Amino acid sequence: MYKKPDVEQFLRAYTIQDFVVSNDERQLVFSTNISGNYNLWGMDLPSQFPYPLTFNDQSCQGLCYDKAGRFIITAFDRDGDENSQLYMIPPEGGQLQPIRIAEGFQHVVPILSDDGKRLYYTSNKEDPTFLKSYCYHIDTKEEEIIIDGDGGATYLYDISPSEDSFLFIKYFSTTHMLAYVKVDNEVIPLTPELDEQHTVTNGVYASDSDIYFITNFGADFSYIAKFDLAEKEFSKVVSLPSEGFKMIKFDEKHHLLYFVSERGVEDHLYSYDIITAKLTELECPIGNINKLEVTAQGNVYLVGTSATKPSNMFRKHANKHRWEQLTNNRVMGVHEDELIDPAVLSYQSFDGLDIEALYFKANPVTSNGHVILWPHGGPQHAERKEFNDVFQYLLNEGYSIFAPNFRGSTGYGLAFTKMVEGDWGHGPRLDNIEGLEFLFKNGLAARDKVLLMGGSYGGYMSLLLHGRHPQYFKAVVDICGPSDLFSFVESVPEHWKPMLTQWVGHPEKDKEKLIEFSPITYLENMSKPMLVIQGANDPRVVKEESDKIVAVLKEKGREVEYLVLEDEGHGFSKKENEVKVYRAICEFFNKYL
Amino acid sequence: MYKKPDVEQFLRAYTIQDFVVSNDERQLVFSTNISGNYNLWGMDLPSQFPYPLTFNDQSCQGLCYDKAGRFIITAFDRDGDENSQLYMIPPEGGQLQPIRIAEGFQHVVPILSDDGKRLYYTSNKEDPTFLKSYCYHIDTKEEEIIIDGDGGATYLYDISPSEDSFLFIKYFSTTHMLAYVKVDNEVIPLTPELDEQHTVTNGVYASDSDIYFITNFGADFSYIAKFDLAEKEFSKVVSLPSEGFKMIKFDEKHHLLYFVSERGVEDHLYSYDIITAKLTELECPIGNINKLEVTAQGNVYLVGTSATKPSNMFRKHANKHRWEQLTNNRVMGVHEDELIDPAVLSYQSFDGLDIEALYFKANPVTSNGHVILWPHGGPQHAERKEFNDVFQYLLNEGYSIFAPNFRGSTGYGLAFTKMVEGDWGHGPRLDNIEGLEFLFKNGLAARDKVLLMGGSYGGYMSLLLHGRHPQYFKAVVDICGPSDLFSFVESVPEHWKPMLTQWVGHPEKDKEKLIEFSPITYLENMSKPMLVIQGANDPRVVKEESDKIVAVLKEKGREVEYLVLEDEGHGFSKKENEVKVYRAICEFFNKYL
Repeated sequence: MYKKPDVEQFLRAYTIQDFVVSNDERQLVFSTNISGNYNLWGMDLPSQFPYPLTFNDQSCQGLCYDKAGRFIITAFDRDGDENSQLYMIPPEGGQLQPIRIAEGFQHVVPILSDDGKRLYYTSNKEDPTFLKSYCYHIDTKEEEIIIDGDGGATYLYDISPSEDSFLFIKYFSTTHMLAYVKVDNEVIPLTPELDEQHTVTNGVYASDSDIYFITNFGADFSYIAKFDLAEKEFSKVVSLPSEGFKMIKFDEKHHLLYFVSERGVEDHLYSYDIITAKLTELECPIGNINKLEVTAQGNVYLVGTSATKPSNMFRKHANKHRWEQLTNNRVMGVHEDELIDPAVLSYQSFDGLDIEALYFKANPVTSNGHVILWPHGGPQHAERKEFNDVFQYLLNEGYSIFAPNFRGSTGYGLAFTKMVEGDWGHGPRLDNIEGLEFLFKNGLAARDKVLLMGGSYGGYMSLLLHGRHPQYFKAVVDICGPSDLFSFVESVPEHWKPMLTQWVGHPEKDKEKLIEFSPITYLENMSKPMLVIQGANDPRVVKEESDKIVAVLKEKGREVEYLVLEDEGHGFSKKENEVKVYRAICEFFNKYL
Repeated sequence: MYKKPDVEQFLRAYTIQDFVVSNDERQLVFSTNISGNYNLWGMDLPSQFPYPLTFNDQSCQGLCYDKAGRFIITAFDRDGDENSQLYMIPPEGGQLQPIRIAEGFQHVVPILSDDGKRLYYTSNKEDPTFLKSYCYHIDTKEEEIIIDGDGGATYLYDISPSEDSFLFIKYFSTTHMLAYVKVDNEVIPLTPELDEQHTVTNGVYASDSDIYFITNFGADFSYIAKFDLAEKEFSKVVSLPSEGFKMIKFDEKHHLLYFVSERGVEDHLYSYDIITAKLTELECPIGNINKLEVTAQGNVYLVGTSATKPSNMFRKHANKHRWEQLTNNRVMGVHEDELIDPAVLSYQSFDGLDIEALYFKANPVTSNGHVILWPHGGPQHAERKEFNDVFQYLLNEGYSIFAPNFRGSTGYGLAFTKMVEGDWGHGPRLDNIEGLEFLFKNGLAARDKVLLMGGSYGGYMSLLLHGRHPQYFKAVVDICGPSDLFSFVESVPEHWKPMLTQWVGHPEKDKEKLIEFSPITYLENMSKPMLVIQGANDPRVVKEESDKIVAVLKEKGREVEYLVLEDEGHGFSKKENEVKVYRAICEFFNKYL
């Protein structure tokens, strides 16, 4: 009776980027593009009808709510440039009042003191490589540096209840992040030994002396550890087999830690009583948690998605089990059970390594028999059971999608994640190819009906696969993928540079490897139709990367389309641009069925 | 601490145009521009979090919900052209499925049969002057004409429960509308005598034989009457002194009529038991009701505004008194008590006639001492205690606003409303001038600090006041105002034409009067700075009207600015256009303070 859903129906499902709850829990403030562009919106609980608080129409995150209810702090960037500036707005919304502005620089992880007088944050404004963390006095407008970055990009993560010690993390690479406490003028590492690379990814003060955090020090999967500042003592608190952790929060009133674990492609939620040591797995309303907050009353708020459910907020009262869905984000005109939940497949790669993959099978009634290989971005990231509007749109159009978590992906232990380091173009590439062979063998794809698409590292991998294995693919889409690792290494943001040698390679010492791993080396072989998509303001993969490959291929007379989004960065912040891009991708693929 | 609210903060307060409730009352569907453009949105009660149902980004009204819950009927026009087409969408939303489309023509007042198989509506597609009403069979796609328009624009208003009789209204002018019932092939007038002009504005079948309706037959103020079809008997049911009625609904379950009255500048809500004849005034959550619905269970839903509260929906359970606010529309960053509630003033005009007016006094702290005279549109309309985003914006910028309900306005009885007929340019004009004199006398305005602005008839009046009383005004804004009554009479939609002679005048018989009343006659005197605003697609006041006056004034070297909105009609359907227009108006006035 009704027409096939349009791309807009999928893309009008919005994202909730961030949220914060007022201390009295009467107001929930969240950042969403429900109206097309991002803005802050409010909800006066128990009423769930939202109202806009800003009209800036830009991406906003880093929300802090003054405990006395006088104002909200928020960070806005511009057209995806990631140079977030800090603003204040009243709880009833209105015009942004600039608080910390340094055009062209970032201001991240804002933390507001309990009395609302001091705003802590980290910025690259004075040190683009290692960053500095600041304490800004809102009333006097004075500012002091509290942490000098050194050795790696250094971010302030939490402040102690009495604001006399600071937890900060040094980021060397995705697999090498160390945490320290600065107390008085002493800097104390949280993990006992720093020689072997490991990570500390998240931490929280439970009291002035006790810090709980997530680390994989001495282990393959991360676990919850504690650092006792008084005793300067490190101890392991909770670890689970084949399950790493990604988020930790503390409920002081009930002396409970809440943490989120990654078990394969889904998240799990736990509480842990720090007095009785009782660990409880909680029912989780969603497959993937993007943010978790615990209020002073011990009520839990979270935002997250599932493969078939876009971004929604949920609340659970401290002593209850039931989650209440606060928002009602859904795909317009499509029932949740008409969306595709992926199968989780596992296969052995060329060297015997086990690879997990998501396989989204188009409804047989509407399937066009084609499978899109999607190498994810990152590369130290994973394709998980999260809502993906583009996947669901392409599935609805009849395409199946294969998304392998090739070596280097997160969620499978530290060793697995590190396997991409210095090996961008070999193992991960063959994991993708072995994945396709696995599909062919099991009748999940036809050898002559494979398409290829990826963004960021996935765009790089799409270019590389196209250059080295063109016979597998009928058509290729590259979204902001680096084409030349030499110029990529030069053009990334300053604070990425310290980790680049380990991550990608050194332009001189690893020259041959970088040549071997650069898609541009294989331009001659890129014989299949290609669509290249690029944001003009992308600070991570600069436009020149895409310009270069398009120019050369056009010169060679290859079939190549180039779509540049003038007001976008790395990814798309504006609905209308997303609609344009994904419609273009589908139309491009449709031509080659 | 915070900046003055921006025009966008006022204009982001949205409008709820129309709504409909599913038969089980689990879904509320409403048309709103909450995201900038109009679309249908849904709400799954009791959850109040809304979700979009369409992505058409155009004005939509005429909502009908299939009682079996299978689909919703909605009318969309395009860029304000008022040529609404009828579409079907599933309750979960999605792409529009065209049902009745005739490009360039209107389809209005859709009524769905109880079984959802027949769609009744009125259209000008076959008779642009008098219109026809149709019954479209959704399953078979066959259509039959059920009412042939005749003598005046003829609209089907309601169908009897067993669909064997039809209530329709003939529109001769705002003060002359007659209602009839068509049963078998007989056409029966609802009011006893048709010779003296009167109106029937709203009616409803309470059963196959009983029709309740609003008329002012034989009276100055309208009242509730009943027509007994079996006995062919007219009777008066409820009348109230100095209070007319505007809306009537029937609750079959509790045999209650609900009706809305206009008492001066505010609405009142009543229920009336048709068995016991008990009339009850109900608490009303809002000053002005735009739509009222009573469900099968007797629950009451309404949408409306107050001077300080934008469009919101409310619900009251059948046997309860308390209204529950379902939406949370507000002016961003401005507390309701910071918005201005107008004083209701009354003054005697040049001939002793009492005129009521709203006077919005800017906060003395921020006032710039200037008063804007706002002659309302219509002219058979009134300025009431409704939310007006532009007024509140201009008030916040320091302007006070004076809005007289000059002769011809509605809400003060039929005789008062009829006073503008054939007298467009004399009495109403002097009522405006006398209003200013009243302000001067009472210290509510300074003689050298008056500005003038109006739209539609108010734009006409602004032009005329400028041409005949330029000494009163420092600057003038005209929004889509007719400048030449001869060409206006020619260019209005076909179905307006039958009433134009009575309403405005006859181009030949009333030639001298039309010359006297046409602003273009006084171009020479229009010496003050002027801003003219016009929608390019306006079907009521065509763009040539504004083009003409601008061209001549420019030729004369007068200070005149011209702002044409390419994608708008009579009024503004797009937020971004509103922002542009009202910012331009404020900047224009600011120049002449």
